[in-house]
Amino acid sequence: MQNFDYMTPTRLIFGKGVISKLPEVMSSFGKKILLTYGGGSIKKIGLYDKVKELLKDSEIYELPGIQPNPKYDPSVLDGVRICKEKNIDVILSVGGGSVLDCTKAIAAGAKYDGDPWDLISYKVKAKAALPIVDIITLAATGSEYDSGGVISRTETNDKIGYVDSLLYPAVSFLDPTYTFTVSKKQTAAGCADAMNHIMEQYFCEDSTLLNDGFMEAGLKSLMVNARKCLDNPEDYTARAEMMLDCTYGCNGIYALGNSASGWPCHGMEHALSAYYDITHGEGLAIITPRWMKHILSDKTVDRFVKYGVNVFGIDSNLDKFDIANKAIDETYKFFESIGIPMHLKDVGIDESRLGEMAHHVAENEGLENAWAPLNEQDILDIFKASL
Amino acid sequence: MQNFDYMTPTRLIFGKGVISKLPEVMSSFGKKILLTYGGGSIKKIGLYDKVKELLKDSEIYELPGIQPNPKYDPSVLDGVRICKEKNIDVILSVGGGSVLDCTKAIAAGAKYDGDPWDLISYKVKAKAALPIVDIITLAATGSEYDSGGVISRTETNDKIGYVDSLLYPAVSFLDPTYTFTVSKKQTAAGCADAMNHIMEQYFCEDSTLLNDGFMEAGLKSLMVNARKCLDNPEDYTARAEMMLDCTYGCNGIYALGNSASGWPCHGMEHALSAYYDITHGEGLAIITPRWMKHILSDKTVDRFVKYGVNVFGIDSNLDKFDIANKAIDETYKFFESIGIPMHLKDVGIDESRLGEMAHHVAENEGLENAWAPLNEQDILDIFKASL
Repeated sequence: MQNFDYMTPTRLIFGKGVISKLPEVMSSFGKKILLTYGGGSIKKIGLYDKVKELLKDSEIYELPGIQPNPKYDPSVLDGVRICKEKNIDVILSVGGGSVLDCTKAIAAGAKYDGDPWDLISYKVKAKAALPIVDIITLAATGSEYDSGGVISRTETNDKIGYVDSLLYPAVSFLDPTYTFTVSKKQTAAGCADAMNHIMEQYFCEDSTLLNDGFMEAGLKSLMVNARKCLDNPEDYTARAEMMLDCTYGCNGIYALGNSASGWPCHGMEHALSAYYDITHGEGLAIITPRWMKHILSDKTVDRFVKYGVNVFGIDSNLDKFDIANKAIDETYKFFESIGIPMHLKDVGIDESRLGEMAHHVAENEGLENAWAPLNEQDILDIFKASL
Repeated sequence: MQNFDYMTPTRLIFGKGVISKLPEVMSSFGKKILLTYGGGSIKKIGLYDKVKELLKDSEIYELPGIQPNPKYDPSVLDGVRICKEKNIDVILSVGGGSVLDCTKAIAAGAKYDGDPWDLISYKVKAKAALPIVDIITLAATGSEYDSGGVISRTETNDKIGYVDSLLYPAVSFLDPTYTFTVSKKQTAAGCADAMNHIMEQYFCEDSTLLNDGFMEAGLKSLMVNARKCLDNPEDYTARAEMMLDCTYGCNGIYALGNSASGWPCHGMEHALSAYYDITHGEGLAIITPRWMKHILSDKTVDRFVKYGVNVFGIDSNLDKFDIANKAIDETYKFFESIGIPMHLKDVGIDESRLGEMAHHVAENEGLENAWAPLNEQDILDIFKASL
């Protein structure tokens, strides 16, 4: 078991109707609010109007139009500019993980005098950040309970996971009813995203009985509840369970004391969605089983056996490579069964830039230090197997 | 799934040698420290000297002699007096859960002008508390990651769980090597305490797949690792896993979204240890299987089936009451197998005051509102079955 230093100071306010606490929470941070959101789905479900009504005594400025795979330019830069010009006290992110990720970068940039890219690219460590409150409308990334965000810079095909303990949301509002209208595509992609967050922590050298049990429970709960959400989008209990399942995914609590895994599938997927702007969860679902097949070896097989037996109930008496291969097949089949396109070509990626992307990943993601080390050729092989 | 509002702001610094961070942590809170501890075991293992050496630039006052089942008089009162007289900045608790529980009451009392019992008895809500740092030397109560403490008042036989969100430790240091010298008796009692914390949350009306999986993992990990600690007290990995298992026990994270259980075994055990000053974990281990037998019914049986199948691996094809009864027997046998005295008479309690204690519990613990409601006669029956 490895040493660790852990704290999550975020307050989770969870359940139907909890938004009634919003005015009290926001007023504790100040009067000037930057409201960040995406493409308008929060208007369709009435949440935008509700927020404006609840905060009618505050001074609200708005940054709409934040895209999936949120962009440094214009979103982060515009947000930072507004915060500085209007002397914003607190940012309220309303939407999914992309809106919140972008909000985190804005929160740090707002308290920094130079180019915010200095912070995101780790050239400079932030000294402060504006407080962040969020209302989450998509069960997926877990950004509501972690200190990181992923920001894309289109002109350089960079997609960087920017992590800093200053970036934990102060308060996250999670009302499962806001996810009732999430499409089947996004529900499935959110499930795949959260499952991959867990797998990225599960597959490592040194884990504990407790962490393994936590993560196996998280994976099983996600699979059961995502299916229920797809069958009946207004199943409150299933939406609620899936929402909390996703919240823990990136928080680190699943891997306290574990050795580092290197998060290889995220490293590879970030190139796919940076170059092609695909849905992150779909990219992960496509990559994950191919990565598993590629790294299966005498060194790694025992983890796959544990995963197969405890998550999919595969007979523990079988040959261990049989168990491992069945577990990988079950992983693929589950993603396929919830409607995720399982080939790169299904999401508009052909072989033309695979080499370029593999090179970019090998240069930038440090996967030669992952639990199962990957060099440029390994990455290219995994991409080709995913076509 | 129930609504919830959750935050744990405690920083966990975990692992061998982490105490080297103590000076930096303490100095962030100020110079004047009240050092609280118990009967001297921290001197035997060299921890007292180490702390004094690391904090040689601070101004340290001491409150030694805090007992198990910590007492309002003299410990809480003495601590509050020192904090006020010396204008203490931060309290450093070094020891097990009892020292930390006492420290929490002192931290609140130090910032209150009246009688600290007003706070502990919930007559007055605390408005502030001194910051608390702890170094835990016993895997058991989970006080290092929760906001409560249990305080006993001898003259009235009161034993009150005092909970307030102001009482989360700011920082908890957890070095498993400090538990190498914990006796077999206390190792087993700590395991039983933590297991009961989980069971008190598991047995309720409404749980989630995720919470059930978390708690089943916690129970299984505690059983495996406690056995290893008893077999080899210096097994670092087992001590470390058991330590983290215990840390989550009382934190609430296991039951986010669950309906209330009423914590019935704690309600009953608090009378036993208030009247007879027995070891809390032993009292819980004695009460728990008798409580289970007493409340087993058509209404409760399905939870016991899940518990039996998932925690003890009992064949799910058996009759459900057979599974439930086997699960209860396995619970008893596990506690017995790790050396816990399993009868009240083994810990010095005879039948003379059972009626008085049952009356006290019925009057003070609200168990008529528990998942499986208990009246005074039920409580007395459980006590008698435990003799």
